[in-house]
Amino acid sequence: MAGKAMARQAAEPLIGQGLMARLRAAREGSEALCAPLSDADQSVQSMADASPAKWHLAHTTWFFEAFVLRDHLPGYQPFDERFFYLFNSYYEHEGARHPRPRRGMLTRPSADRILDYRHHVEAGLDRLLAAASGADAARIGELVELGINHEQQHQELLLTDILHLFAQNPLEPAYGEGEPPAGQAGPVQADRWRSFGGGIVRIGHSGGGFCYDNETPAHDALVHPFRLADALVTNGDWLAFMADGGYRTATLWLSDGWAQVQGENWQAPLYWQEGEDGWSQMSLWGRQPVDPRAPACHVSYYEADAFARWAGKRLPNEFEWEVAAREVPVRGNLGSSGQLRPLAAGHHASGARQMFGDVWEWTASPYTAYPGFAAAKGAVGEYNGKFMCNQMVLRGGSCVTPEGHVRASYRNFFYPHQRWQFMGLRLAEDG
Amino acid sequence: MAGKAMARQAAEPLIGQGLMARLRAAREGSEALCAPLSDADQSVQSMADASPAKWHLAHTTWFFEAFVLRDHLPGYQPFDERFFYLFNSYYEHEGARHPRPRRGMLTRPSADRILDYRHHVEAGLDRLLAAASGADAARIGELVELGINHEQQHQELLLTDILHLFAQNPLEPAYGEGEPPAGQAGPVQADRWRSFGGGIVRIGHSGGGFCYDNETPAHDALVHPFRLADALVTNGDWLAFMADGGYRTATLWLSDGWAQVQGENWQAPLYWQEGEDGWSQMSLWGRQPVDPRAPACHVSYYEADAFARWAGKRLPNEFEWEVAAREVPVRGNLGSSGQLRPLAAGHHASGARQMFGDVWEWTASPYTAYPGFAAAKGAVGEYNGKFMCNQMVLRGGSCVTPEGHVRASYRNFFYPHQRWQFMGLRLAEDG
Amino acid sequence: MAGKAMARQAAEPLIGQGLMARLRAAREGSEALCAPLSDADQSVQSMADASPAKWHLAHTTWFFEAFVLRDHLPGYQPFDERFFYLFNSYYEHEGARHPRPRRGMLTRPSADRILDYRHHVEAGLDRLLAAASGADAARIGELVELGINHEQQHQELLLTDILHLFAQNPLEPAYGEGEPPAGQAGPVQADRWRSFGGGIVRIGHSGGGFCYDNETPAHDALVHPFRLADALVTNGDWLAFMADGGYRTATLWLSDGWAQVQGENWQAPLYWQEGEDGWSQMSLWGRQPVDPRAPACHVSYYEADAFARWAGKRLPNEFEWEVAAREVPVRGNLGSSGQLRPLAAGHHASGARQMFGDVWEWTASPYTAYPGFAAAKGAVGEYNGKFMCNQMVLRGGSCVTPEGHVRASYRNFFYPHQRWQFMGLRLAEDG
Amino acid sequence: MAGKAMARQAAEPLIGQGLMARLRAAREGSEALCAPLSDADQSVQSMADASPAKWHLAHTTWFFEAFVLRDHLPGYQPFDERFFYLFNSYYEHEGARHPRPRRGMLTRPSADRILDYRHHVEAGLDRLLAAASGADAARIGELVELGINHEQQHQELLLTDILHLFAQNPLEPAYGEGEPPAGQAGPVQADRWRSFGGGIVRIGHSGGGFCYDNETPAHDALVHPFRLADALVTNGDWLAFMADGGYRTATLWLSDGWAQVQGENWQAPLYWQEGEDGWSQMSLWGRQPVDPRAPACHVSYYEADAFARWAGKRLPNEFEWEVAAREVPVRGNLGSSGQLRPLAAGHHASGARQMFGDVWEWTASPYTAYPGFAAAKGAVGEYNGKFMCNQMVLRGGSCVTPEGHVRASYRNFFYPHQRWQFMGLRLAEDG
Repeated sequence: MAGKAMARQAAEPLIGQGLMARLRAAREGSEALCAPLSDADQSVQSMADASPAKWHLAHTTWFFEAFVLRDHLPGYQPFDERFFYLFNSYYEHEGARHPRPRRGMLTRPSADRILDYRHHVEAGLDRLLAAASGADAARIGELVELGINHEQQHQELLLTDILHLFAQNPLEPAYGEGEPPAGQAGPVQADRWRSFGGGIVRIGHSGGGFCYDNETPAHDALVHPFRLADALVTNGDWLAFMADGGYRTATLWLSDGWAQVQGENWQAPLYWQEGEDGWSQMSLWGRQPVDPRAPACHVSYYEADAFARWAGKRLPNEFEWEVAAREVPVRGNLGSSGQLRPLAAGHHASGARQMFGDVWEWTASPYTAYPGFAAAKGAVGEYNGKFMCNQMVLRGGSCVTPEGHVRASYRNFFYPHQRWQFMGLRLAEDG
Repeated sequence: MAGKAMARQAAEPLIGQGLMARLRAAREGSEALCAPLSDADQSVQSMADASPAKWHLAHTTWFFEAFVLRDHLPGYQPFDERFFYLFNSYYEHEGARHPRPRRGMLTRPSADRILDYRHHVEAGLDRLLAAASGADAARIGELVELGINHEQQHQELLLTDILHLFAQNPLEPAYGEGEPPAGQAGPVQADRWRSFGGGIVRIGHSGGGFCYDNETPAHDALVHPFRLADALVTNGDWLAFMADGGYRTATLWLSDGWAQVQGENWQAPLYWQEGEDGWSQMSLWGRQPVDPRAPACHVSYYEADAFARWAGKRLPNEFEWEVAAREVPVRGNLGSSGQLRPLAAGHHASGARQMFGDVWEWTASPYTAYPGFAAAKGAVGEYNGKFMCNQMVLRGGSCVTPEGHVRASYRNFFYPHQRWQFMGLRLAEDG
Repeated sequence: MAGKAMARQAAEPLIGQGLMARLRAAREGSEALCAPLSDADQSVQSMADASPAKWHLAHTTWFFEAFVLRDHLPGYQPFDERFFYLFNSYYEHEGARHPRPRRGMLTRPSADRILDYRHHVEAGLDRLLAAASGADAARIGELVELGINHEQQHQELLLTDILHLFAQNPLEPAYGEGEPPAGQAGPVQADRWRSFGGGIVRIGHSGGGFCYDNETPAHDALVHPFRLADALVTNGDWLAFMADGGYRTATLWLSDGWAQVQGENWQAPLYWQEGEDGWSQMSLWGRQPVDPRAPACHVSYYEADAFARWAGKRLPNEFEWEVAAREVPVRGNLGSSGQLRPLAAGHHASGARQMFGDVWEWTASPYTAYPGFAAAKGAVGEYNGKFMCNQMVLRGGSCVTPEGHVRASYRNFFYPHQRWQFMGLRLAEDG
Repeated sequence: MAGKAMARQAAEPLIGQGLMARLRAAREGSEALCAPLSDADQSVQSMADASPAKWHLAHTTWFFEAFVLRDHLPGYQPFDERFFYLFNSYYEHEGARHPRPRRGMLTRPSADRILDYRHHVEAGLDRLLAAASGADAARIGELVELGINHEQQHQELLLTDILHLFAQNPLEPAYGEGEPPAGQAGPVQADRWRSFGGGIVRIGHSGGGFCYDNETPAHDALVHPFRLADALVTNGDWLAFMADGGYRTATLWLSDGWAQVQGENWQAPLYWQEGEDGWSQMSLWGRQPVDPRAPACHVSYYEADAFARWAGKRLPNEFEWEVAAREVPVRGNLGSSGQLRPLAAGHHASGARQMFGDVWEWTASPYTAYPGFAAAKGAVGEYNGKFMCNQMVLRGGSCVTPEGHVRASYRNFFYPHQRWQFMGLRLAEDG
């Protein structure tokens, strides 16, 4: 993913210390995520939707090399010309690429050599940023900003992909070391419903700071009065849905969803398993008991939609969600918490709980272009725009989203059958 | 498909002569469509998306039997109990059913026996409608109205499915007898662009007459200023797109669309073939030369979207289309023309040309529920609502849509890769 | 299938009345088989392995047209040039052909037109046979003989394919009219085992009369002493195998067979179904109770092999079977019985029972070339030779094999997973 | 694979130093093969037919643990109970197992932990062998012998699987370090044909030493006079076949073979690629030019069969091959040569060249049981017997077969479409 909306950093010098520090933090963050992983862990691809950790490390580096250094650093020597082919993800403008479902075949280059690649590119970026000036510096600053955000996205993907890989292994290894940190204690307070009036609202990103092109242009949208639950649907709620035959009741489901349920024999969220001691779920902490107070997670859009129908509610659309999210600070159980799993909601504060972090929230909105949307020119224009079909918008970030990455106008998107991200839901109803 | 919005026939007696005449016309119309078809033609299923003609004849009959006679005609004896299983399409409320991809295995019941079935049910409807009174009559009238519209939809499907079947046969048989009737003569006049201001508009069905539930509730929507081509994209336009490498240029396509193009090796619209005399296309009149003046047809959403991008335009969304369509009468090259193929646009009149008939027009709108939408209770609630995912809205009817079936608020929907319906496009741009 | 071994009719004039009568009988026989079938029944293809009845009628006609008339009748006008493409089965020498899995798309030509085609070709054959003389007559006689045998094979296939088609239909139509004729009455007598000494035996066709090329050359083979059951494995035996967990015991199965059992969830022979009244099986007489005295039928090689292992026996190899079959006359429950289903074995006579007719008997022999085998030159050489891989030999003919078609040296062959032919087994053990 | 024919070591003490030394050599040999491989190289599975190197290391260890230590070493503590599930390959007697196509998901246990597993089991074997006595010692000796041979088979598979994996990687890494050792110099001498008379011959293993159960029982077979090429078909021969349109000429191919050629678009042996400098092939030494003098390799049975037909010859059957092989010593370009690739034949000596080593030679014989064959009791009986269907016999060993593993009666077997082993062919004709 990538974008155009990057000319919005007026307050700071074009390539300031802030950007360079954030670049360094992002780069180091990715490496740090791989510390608990072996060479093999980093190399295997568990399904076509997922990528090896090593590939994430290399692809985020390719991004800087192909979009920043190759175009802007005079005399830059690529680390290895063949990596342009190996680590391009989906950018048609950048030429042919290694097929996505075969990323796991790349046992070479080794993990070590990919670290060398990373450092080679980082050295180039250091040289470039130190020297950039004038109009080019503005463009470079934008691209580096984009690259940082891109790297953050892949940090999240790296963790979700590792969870998927480890879940395929009967040994069920844990990514996190030791016991998971204690979460929220005490009873969960019941949901409250928050009411919002309708009317014309401003949607999308405006004001300063980075955003992706798919959040633009900011535009007016008409919202009808609605009510929104102030917390996420929990595992306890989900167990009630299951106990009531949710996965066996065709009339609760979209037609495509029901075909999926039948075809895949879904009977619970992804990673859940029933044993003698009840339900457990595979997590980044290995297999753990299902906590009824924690948010339901790893459910598809089809499941979220069926659950809402069963509950007599509906999913919010993305405009409703954005209206509500603007009122609360971007705080919550994000990646920096180190929890690596969604947590029970806290006690009522003034605003909605769990709007940011814990799980990405499925909305009822298909992922489409905002009115007046135009993709950026060139390769970076492929970041978001060409995916605007067949996917649904999710909002709010998750427990593995890097701090500072998400915002109220942020639009994530996945296919309605996908479940391996940290995905859950919040209910809505007409106001 | 089916609906709830049926309590809107206040002007006429509850079950009046008009309804009965239209019922008879619809029923006879379906039979008439099968006159040129052999028993074999009516029995074979050419792909999972299509159904045998005989199955269409039986299923539309099942609809009246299952939803009207069984519930409302005291003492009704089903023609054959097993037909409830054989000819249910997708109604989970109605129980188990014969799998869709295996509809072509039903060489029995014979075509003759299905006609007997039809007449048995029609006799039941005659008795019921003659006797109905009171509150039940209103409900019966609604259901019969729905059944008529349902039958009309299947008349269109029957023709598109027969075209698909005949296109699989190297002999390329024609459905229509003799030469196709002459279409529009003379040169095609260039497109004009019509401008529309933005603002809050009323969308969906209101006022009298039948509509499907997915056209309701009527509601306010915000439309931004836009311009709309006054005619459809033509085969001539499409040939230019092809000549310019449209099918080989990845960057014109949505990501899923490009995967489809590559996976299926698409190089032209469905049914097109290049020969020594240029391009021809299979049609209900057998193989015919591609007429550059006629509308492009049998293109997927992916192709329509890529074409619009190539042309520097976009597809209209469904609200824009509806705003423009309300201004013109529901007239055009519909099924009653006997043309059985899209025709070149006529000369400029005051309003948009070809808004109704010729080809269904892909819009940029994913098929979703209108705000406040609630599916009808029970089986008829499955008519439309459960398909509100992964499909795109098309508007306007086609050259095989029965007269009187379509209207400005009418929403058709197909998956973005599908091409076998009479589907084309009209361009739009921001105003 | 077809062959070379055709220069063996020395006793009769080259194209004698016998040949012409048999030709006429074969041709009329095929048409007669279609009498109970509608146009739709004759047109639908129920799976890629099966062909529509209409296609069988046309292909057997194509065989005479392409191999006899086109090459040998001066001035012959093909009925329709396009039929050479439509009705070629698999002869690469004869050029491109309609893909096998799409034979069911050919609703046209109609059944009537295919009868016209048949009669056109028959008239040509009449002219040719009346006039043929000299060396050409010998070759023509051979080819006509081959064509008759070819037509007989397709008569059997036509019936097995119709059974498969009707078995896909929940209405389970019967091909035969009325009740099935009574079979063998009285108790079944227990198997006896017949012993055969080993040694060098002559295998393959020698002496007069027609044979296929795959039965040649006659050659010596070494057979070890063996014993052979004098009757077929029965449904009663099979029920015991099932009751003993045969379909759930991995160690009884070949590895590929077990994968098939698991992948297809096989729990009984094809067409069997368990109901409140026990097991029944779909047949050419519709659904009928499983008769424990009748031979087990519609089992794959994998099942036959597993059954034999369960029984502590083995399947005979094809040489053993041929040695035993030579001792008994070619009589049994063949197609001419009108039974259209395998029957219980009669009482003991001097030789083996059920060697011919009832069911084709799986042998332990992979289908390979006999030593010194050479396929005939040209297209007819493709009849048998190119299938000599991955298939297993079956011997003895079935209840739908035309009278006069089968003999002791006759080699049929199918893939080990196939079940839709009338296939069963006889046990053997080392002597 | 595994066997029964193991009671044939009368000359040496039951568990002698010879066996222990060979066990140690086999175990060390496997580890040594992995020295050039990273943890990732050892963990990825490149297709369902192949297994990760790490899995080979673990499975060969499981074999000793499950078949020897668990049953015969009192008080043996398994290294990790879960490994019985993870590293069972296909032994139904040993219970459930990790699905074959998912062996590549096991990034854990790590390569190091698998070495610990190996050493744990080796320590157990040391204790067992030192203490074994009496009747049990004989059985243990047999099983250890089987385990050594099993380990040798997996050494060959490990190399062929690594080649396959590296061939999926666009970087085309080499397994061998540096340049490949020089092979045979000088011109290749033309083939000579060696003649063999027919008659009854003894086939299968007899006399002392280890063999697999599928080589037994030794039995008489009838062989017809034949002639056999004294060297393998070369790449030069293969290039001539290709130049003559071999891959485009349907009539050269078995029907299933032609379907494979078309479906997979085969145009050359596996791993071949045409570039500006002609044809090259991926090898354990990375990409290397195709040497026209070296044996053709990585061809399927279908290709071997088509080549032979094109050449006007045929493949030998396995009895013919065995008759010829008995005359020559078991010497050749086997794994111990370090060549890791097939080499050009040397100059004529008295007997056939290349009978052992270089490439496994496809025979015309389907893999079936010898007369009187009975699989061993229990799990080891699954080693060979259950694969006796759908596969073809190959003879002679290859350039990666461990020294001492192969013999004249040795039967290898693969499916006719498989190509990733070191497979080639030698021609034969009737004598």
